[in-house]
Amino acid sequence: MDLKQIAKDTAKVMSSYLTYQAMRIVVSQLNETNPPLAYWLQNFSATANLQNGEAYIETLLQEKPDLAIRIMTVREHIAEEVTEFLPEMVLTGIMQANIDHRKRYLERAVTGLPLLDSTPETETEPGSG
Amino acid sequence: MDLKQIAKDTAKVMSSYLTYQAMRIVVSQLNETNPPLAYWLQNFSATANLQNGEAYIETLLQEKPDLAIRIMTVREHIAEEVTEFLPEMVLTGIMQANIDHRKRYLERAVTGLPLLDSTPETETEPGSG
Repeated sequence: MDLKQIAKDTAKVMSSYLTYQAMRIVVSQLNETNPPLAYWLQNFSATANLQNGEAYIETLLQEKPDLAIRIMTVREHIAEEVTEFLPEMVLTGIMQANIDHRKRYLERAVTGLPLLDSTPETETEPGSG
Repeated sequence: MDLKQIAKDTAKVMSSYLTYQAMRIVVSQLNETNPPLAYWLQNFSATANLQNGEAYIETLLQEKPDLAIRIMTVREHIAEEVTEFLPEMVLTGIMQANIDHRKRYLERAVTGLPLLDSTPETETEPGSG
């Protein structure tokens, strides 16, 4: 389990996701001030590779530098505002979700027990034992 | 700009991504101990909706509860180990990437300028005089 690599990959995914959120904010701002440009950015973003935030910015810089710089500014602002809360949110979110999943699974198991008991065990897992 | 909603959405994306990473770890562990089950989990994960980590766990709980519980345990462990480092990694990552993009953009702009300015009009018409 290479935790360092996982941390790096997760940071990259987060960074790309914040770039996507920044693009959405800029589109919504442009809808008020310059609808044709909003439309252009929306179309561009639908075809560009937003899974890779840096590649997206790089391509947009060549097409419309002003928009790319605006999205860069917005994503930095979002990152400053929200990232500090994420560790707590993600950790408690996962812990709570795990508890909920286990609870629902146990409830189903308990409700289903008599049914499961009367079913002969025919399934065998490959390679088990 | 609804920063609270963006934080919530980002946390959800991160949680799903850590679920995906946990699945990969479990697949790689099973490759050592139970290759057919590793193969099964890999196939299951290729068709299941891993964009939504909770829906993925829910479906897996119904198919192979042991594997779902194992992935839940692993993702909680990863979250405990890596999330605290992410704010700093993401923020400095975005700031550095923004600087790099701006630098490359300016370099291209500057490199383009002298060439355009200094290119003398040397073309002479053939056969003149």
